[in-house]
Amino acid sequence: MLARELVEPFPVVALESPALDATRLLIERRLPGLIVVDAHGAPHSVLPGSQVLRFLVPAYVQEDPSLARVYDEAHADRLCASLAGRTVADLLPTKRVELSVVDAGDTALEIAAIMAKLRSPLVAVVDDGRLLGAITVSRLLERLLAIP
Amino acid sequence: MLARELVEPFPVVALESPALDATRLLIERRLPGLIVVDAHGAPHSVLPGSQVLRFLVPAYVQEDPSLARVYDEAHADRLCASLAGRTVADLLPTKRVELSVVDAGDTALEIAAIMAKLRSPLVAVVDDGRLLGAITVSRLLERLLAIP
Repeated sequence: MLARELVEPFPVVALESPALDATRLLIERRLPGLIVVDAHGAPHSVLPGSQVLRFLVPAYVQEDPSLARVYDEAHADRLCASLAGRTVADLLPTKRVELSVVDAGDTALEIAAIMAKLRSPLVAVVDDGRLLGAITVSRLLERLLAIP
Repeated sequence: MLARELVEPFPVVALESPALDATRLLIERRLPGLIVVDAHGAPHSVLPGSQVLRFLVPAYVQEDPSLARVYDEAHADRLCASLAGRTVADLLPTKRVELSVVDAGDTALEIAAIMAKLRSPLVAVVDDGRLLGAITVSRLLERLLAIP
Protein backbone atom coordinates (compact mmCIF):
# COMPACT_ATOMS: atom_id res chain seq x y z
CA MET A 1 0.00 0.00 0.00
CA LEU A 2 1.63 3.20 -1.22
CA ALA A 3 1.11 6.88 -0.44
CA ARG A 4 -0.48 7.41 -3.85
CA GLU A 5 -3.27 4.96 -2.86
CA LEU A 6 -3.77 6.60 0.54
CA VAL A 7 -3.67 10.26 -0.41
CA GLU A 8 -6.81 12.39 -0.12
CA PRO A 9 -7.51 15.94 -1.26
CA PHE A 10 -6.70 18.49 1.44
CA PRO A 11 -7.49 22.22 1.47
CA VAL A 12 -4.51 24.25 0.34
CA VAL A 13 -3.78 27.97 0.33
CA ALA A 14 -1.01 29.86 -1.40
CA LEU A 15 1.38 32.22 0.37
CA GLU A 16 -0.28 35.07 -1.51
CA SER A 17 -3.89 33.97 -0.81
CA PRO A 18 -5.99 36.51 1.13
CA ALA A 19 -5.91 35.88 4.88
CA LEU A 20 -9.71 36.09 5.01
CA ASP A 21 -10.11 33.32 2.41
CA ALA A 22 -7.78 31.06 4.41
CA THR A 23 -9.73 31.79 7.59
CA ARG A 24 -13.02 31.01 5.84
CA LEU A 25 -11.58 27.67 4.72
CA LEU A 26 -10.51 26.79 8.27
CA ILE A 27 -14.02 27.58 9.50
CA GLU A 28 -15.99 25.88 6.72
CA ARG A 29 -13.95 22.71 6.74
CA ARG A 30 -13.56 22.69 10.54
CA LEU A 31 -9.83 22.18 10.22
CA PRO A 32 -7.11 22.75 12.81
CA GLY A 33 -4.81 24.03 10.06
CA LEU A 34 -4.16 24.38 6.35
CA ILE A 35 -1.36 23.36 4.01
CA VAL A 36 0.42 26.34 2.48
CA VAL A 37 2.02 26.02 -0.95
CA ASP A 38 4.55 28.30 -2.63
CA ALA A 39 4.25 29.96 -6.03
CA HIS A 40 5.28 26.69 -7.72
CA GLY A 41 2.59 24.61 -5.94
CA ALA A 42 5.20 22.91 -3.75
CA PRO A 43 4.40 22.40 -0.03
CA HIS A 44 5.74 25.29 2.04
CA SER A 45 4.45 24.97 5.61
CA VAL A 46 1.39 24.65 7.81
CA LEU A 47 -0.87 27.52 8.81
CA PRO A 48 -2.27 26.49 12.22
CA GLY A 49 -5.64 27.99 13.10
CA SER A 50 -4.14 29.14 16.39
CA GLN A 51 -1.84 31.38 14.37
CA VAL A 52 -4.87 33.23 12.99
CA LEU A 53 -5.94 33.79 16.60
CA ARG A 54 -2.49 35.21 17.41
CA PHE A 55 -3.09 37.73 14.68
CA LEU A 56 -6.58 38.63 15.88
CA VAL A 57 -6.13 38.86 19.60
CA PRO A 58 -4.62 42.16 20.77
CA ALA A 59 -1.05 41.68 22.05
CA TYR A 60 -1.85 42.92 25.56
CA VAL A 61 -4.60 40.29 25.87
CA GLN A 62 -2.21 37.55 24.72
CA GLU A 63 0.22 38.65 27.41
CA ASP A 64 -2.46 38.55 30.08
CA PRO A 65 -5.66 36.68 29.05
CA SER A 66 -7.50 38.08 32.09
CA LEU A 67 -7.47 41.45 30.30
CA ALA A 68 -9.82 39.94 27.68
CA ARG A 69 -12.71 40.92 29.91
CA VAL A 70 -12.04 44.60 29.43
CA TYR A 71 -12.07 44.20 25.64
CA ASP A 72 -15.42 44.55 23.96
CA GLU A 73 -15.59 41.30 22.06
CA ALA A 74 -18.86 42.22 20.36
CA HIS A 75 -16.76 44.04 17.80
CA ALA A 76 -16.24 41.11 15.47
CA ASP A 77 -16.03 43.58 12.61
CA ARG A 78 -12.97 45.14 14.22
CA LEU A 79 -11.34 41.69 14.55
CA CYS A 80 -12.17 40.93 10.91
CA ALA A 81 -10.71 44.26 9.85
CA SER A 82 -7.29 43.21 11.13
CA LEU A 83 -7.30 40.41 8.52
CA ALA A 84 -8.49 42.56 5.61
CA GLY A 85 -5.80 43.20 3.01
CA ARG A 86 -3.46 40.65 4.61
CA THR A 87 -2.11 37.53 2.95
CA VAL A 88 -1.41 34.05 4.28
CA ALA A 89 2.29 34.97 4.26
CA ASP A 90 1.50 37.79 6.73
CA LEU A 91 -0.20 35.33 9.10
CA LEU A 92 2.53 32.72 9.16
CA PRO A 93 4.69 32.51 12.25
CA THR A 94 8.28 33.75 11.98
CA LYS A 95 9.43 30.23 12.77
CA ARG A 96 7.87 28.16 10.02
CA VAL A 97 5.65 25.25 11.11
CA GLU A 98 7.16 22.44 9.11
CA LEU A 99 5.00 20.13 7.11
CA SER A 100 6.04 16.49 6.93
CA VAL A 101 6.32 15.50 3.30
CA VAL A 102 6.33 11.98 1.88
CA ASP A 103 6.75 10.70 -1.63
CA ALA A 104 3.89 9.14 -3.62
CA GLY A 105 5.90 5.91 -3.69
CA ASP A 106 6.45 5.59 0.08
CA THR A 107 4.74 2.66 1.79
CA ALA A 108 2.04 2.92 4.47
CA LEU A 109 4.42 1.61 7.12
CA GLU A 110 7.15 4.07 6.15
CA ILE A 111 4.62 6.89 6.46
CA ALA A 112 3.44 5.53 9.82
CA ALA A 113 7.04 5.48 11.05
CA ILE A 114 7.54 9.09 9.94
CA MET A 115 4.29 10.29 11.54
CA ALA A 116 5.10 8.40 14.74
CA LYS A 117 8.59 9.86 14.90
CA LEU A 118 7.55 13.46 14.16
CA ARG A 119 4.29 13.13 16.15
CA SER A 120 2.53 14.54 13.14
CA PRO A 121 -1.23 14.21 12.53
CA LEU A 122 -0.79 14.87 8.80
CA VAL A 123 1.71 14.40 5.98
CA ALA A 124 1.71 16.03 2.57
CA VAL A 125 2.20 13.71 -0.40
CA VAL A 126 4.24 14.94 -3.33
CA ASP A 127 4.88 13.43 -6.73
CA ASP A 128 7.80 14.98 -8.56
CA GLY A 129 7.68 18.00 -6.22
CA ARG A 130 4.00 18.65 -6.90
CA LEU A 131 1.52 18.39 -4.01
CA LEU A 132 -0.98 15.55 -4.53
CA GLY A 133 -2.85 15.98 -1.23
CA ALA A 134 -2.41 14.70 2.30
CA ILE A 135 -2.68 11.62 4.49
CA THR A 136 -4.17 12.05 7.95
CA VAL A 137 -3.34 9.84 10.90
CA SER A 138 -6.95 8.56 11.04
CA ARG A 139 -6.85 7.58 7.36
CA LEU A 140 -3.57 5.75 7.85
CA LEU A 141 -4.82 3.89 10.94
CA GLU A 142 -7.94 2.89 9.02
CA ARG A 143 -5.97 1.42 6.14
CA LEU A 144 -3.21 -0.16 8.24
CA LEU A 145 -5.55 -1.86 10.67
CA ALA A 146 -8.56 -2.52 8.48
CA ILE A 147 -10.62 -2.33 11.67
CA PRO A 148 -14.25 -3.20 10.92
CA MET B 1 -19.82 35.03 24.58
CA LEU B 2 -18.75 32.44 27.11
CA ALA B 3 -17.16 29.00 26.86
CA ARG B 4 -20.45 27.37 27.88
CA GLU B 5 -22.08 28.86 24.73
CA LEU B 6 -19.21 27.74 22.49
CA VAL B 7 -18.62 24.23 23.78
CA GLU B 8 -19.38 21.24 21.57
CA PRO B 9 -19.40 17.52 22.36
CA PHE B 10 -16.03 15.90 21.71
CA PRO B 11 -15.16 12.20 21.71
CA VAL B 12 -13.67 11.17 25.02
CA VAL B 13 -11.98 8.00 26.22
CA ALA B 14 -11.11 6.91 29.73
CA LEU B 15 -7.64 5.85 30.83
CA GLU B 16 -8.98 2.33 31.23
CA SER B 17 -10.83 2.22 27.86
CA PRO B 18 -9.64 -0.54 25.49
CA ALA B 19 -6.97 0.72 23.08
CA LEU B 20 -8.89 -0.76 20.14
CA ASP B 21 -12.05 1.21 21.02
CA ALA B 22 -10.03 4.42 21.14
CA THR B 23 -8.45 3.62 17.78
CA ARG B 24 -11.87 2.92 16.24
CA LEU B 25 -13.07 6.30 17.49
CA LEU B 26 -10.07 8.09 15.91
CA ILE B 27 -10.81 6.36 12.62
CA GLU B 28 -14.59 6.78 12.58
CA ARG B 29 -14.54 10.42 13.59
CA ARG B 30 -11.47 11.20 11.48
CA LEU B 31 -9.83 12.91 14.42
CA PRO B 32 -6.16 13.76 14.96
CA GLY B 33 -6.53 12.91 18.66
CA LEU B 34 -8.88 12.19 21.54
CA ILE B 35 -9.46 13.69 24.96
CA VAL B 36 -8.60 11.30 27.77
CA VAL B 37 -10.43 11.55 31.10
CA ASP B 38 -9.53 10.05 34.45
CA ALA B 39 -11.70 7.84 36.65
CA HIS B 40 -13.55 10.93 37.93
CA GLY B 41 -14.39 12.21 34.43
CA ALA B 42 -11.88 15.06 34.75
CA PRO B 43 -9.69 15.90 31.72
CA HIS B 44 -6.37 14.03 31.92
CA SER B 45 -4.47 14.49 28.64
CA VAL B 46 -4.61 14.10 24.88
CA LEU B 47 -4.11 10.83 23.02
CA PRO B 48 -2.65 11.88 19.66
CA GLY B 49 -3.32 9.49 16.78
CA SER B 50 0.41 9.50 16.07
CA GLN B 51 0.91 7.88 19.45
CA VAL B 52 -1.17 4.89 18.33
CA LEU B 53 1.17 4.61 15.35
CA ARG B 54 4.18 4.63 17.71
CA PHE B 55 2.65 1.63 19.38
CA LEU B 56 1.94 -0.20 16.12
CA VAL B 57 5.11 0.37 14.17
CA PRO B 58 7.95 -1.96 15.14
CA ALA B 59 10.71 -0.06 16.97
CA TYR B 60 13.37 -0.89 14.36
CA VAL B 61 11.19 0.64 11.64
CA GLN B 62 10.70 3.80 13.72
CA GLU B 63 14.47 4.06 14.07
CA ASP B 64 14.96 3.68 10.33
CA PRO B 65 11.79 4.12 8.23
CA SER B 66 13.56 2.72 5.16
CA LEU B 67 13.38 -0.69 6.88
CA ALA B 68 9.57 -0.54 6.49
CA ARG B 69 9.99 -2.07 3.05
CA VAL B 70 11.28 -5.33 4.48
CA TYR B 71 8.26 -5.60 6.78
CA ASP B 72 5.23 -7.36 5.35
CA GLU B 73 2.58 -4.73 5.85
CA ALA B 74 -0.19 -6.98 4.57
CA HIS B 75 -0.39 -8.40 8.07
CA ALA B 76 -2.85 -5.88 9.45
CA ASP B 77 -4.08 -8.58 11.82
CA ARG B 78 -0.62 -8.69 13.40
CA LEU B 79 -0.65 -4.91 13.86
CA CYS B 80 -4.15 -5.09 15.38
CA ALA B 81 -2.98 -7.84 17.71
CA SER B 82 -0.49 -5.47 19.31
CA LEU B 83 -3.43 -3.34 20.49
CA ALA B 84 -5.54 -6.22 21.78
CA GLY B 85 -5.81 -6.34 25.56
CA ARG B 86 -4.20 -2.90 25.90
CA THR B 87 -5.78 0.18 27.45
CA VAL B 88 -5.57 3.86 26.57
CA ALA B 89 -3.23 4.28 29.54
CA ASP B 90 -0.82 1.83 27.85
CA LEU B 91 -0.82 3.91 24.66
CA LEU B 92 -0.17 7.27 26.26
CA PRO B 93 3.30 8.74 25.93
CA THR B 94 5.49 8.77 29.04
CA LYS B 95 5.52 12.55 28.81
CA ARG B 96 1.84 13.47 29.01
CA VAL B 97 0.44 15.58 26.14
CA GLU B 98 -1.22 18.36 28.08
CA LEU B 99 -4.73 19.42 27.30
CA SER B 100 -5.56 23.09 27.59
CA VAL B 101 -8.48 23.49 29.93
CA VAL B 102 -10.77 26.49 30.23
CA ASP B 103 -13.66 27.22 32.54
CA ALA B 104 -17.27 27.33 31.35
CA GLY B 105 -17.35 31.00 32.37
CA ASP B 106 -14.29 32.12 30.37
CA THR B 107 -14.94 34.52 27.50
CA ALA B 108 -14.30 33.81 23.82
CA LEU B 109 -11.44 36.30 23.74
CA GLU B 110 -9.81 34.79 26.84
CA ILE B 111 -9.99 31.37 25.17
CA ALA B 112 -8.57 32.80 21.94
CA ALA B 113 -5.66 34.28 23.92
CA ILE B 114 -4.98 30.94 25.58
CA MET B 115 -5.13 28.97 22.32
CA ALA B 116 -2.92 31.55 20.60
CA LYS B 117 -0.36 31.43 23.41
CA LEU B 118 -0.26 27.63 23.69
CA ARG B 119 -0.65 27.14 19.90
CA SER B 120 -3.43 24.72 20.70
CA PRO B 121 -6.08 23.64 18.17
CA LEU B 122 -8.45 22.53 20.95
CA VAL B 123 -9.37 23.35 24.54
CA ALA B 124 -11.39 21.26 26.96
CA VAL B 125 -14.18 23.08 28.81
CA VAL B 126 -14.87 22.15 32.42
CA ASP B 127 -17.61 23.20 34.78
CA ASP B 128 -16.85 22.48 38.41
CA GLY B 129 -14.11 20.03 37.38
CA ARG B 130 -16.41 18.06 35.09
CA LEU B 131 -15.68 17.92 31.35
CA LEU B 132 -18.43 19.59 29.30
CA GLY B 133 -16.81 19.11 25.88
CA ALA B 134 -14.34 21.03 23.78
CA ILE B 135 -13.89 24.14 21.68
CA THR B 136 -11.94 23.83 18.44
CA VAL B 137 -10.00 26.66 16.85
CA SER B 138 -12.32 26.61 13.81
CA ARG B 139 -15.40 26.93 16.03
CA LEU B 140 -13.84 29.83 17.89
CA LEU B 141 -12.84 31.64 14.70
CA GLU B 142 -16.37 31.17 13.36
CA ARG B 143 -17.97 32.72 16.41
CA LEU B 144 -15.40 35.48 16.92
CA LEU B 145 -15.42 36.65 13.34
CA ALA B 146 -18.99 35.85 12.29
CA ILE B 147 -17.63 35.51 8.75
CA PRO B 148 -20.50 34.95 6.32
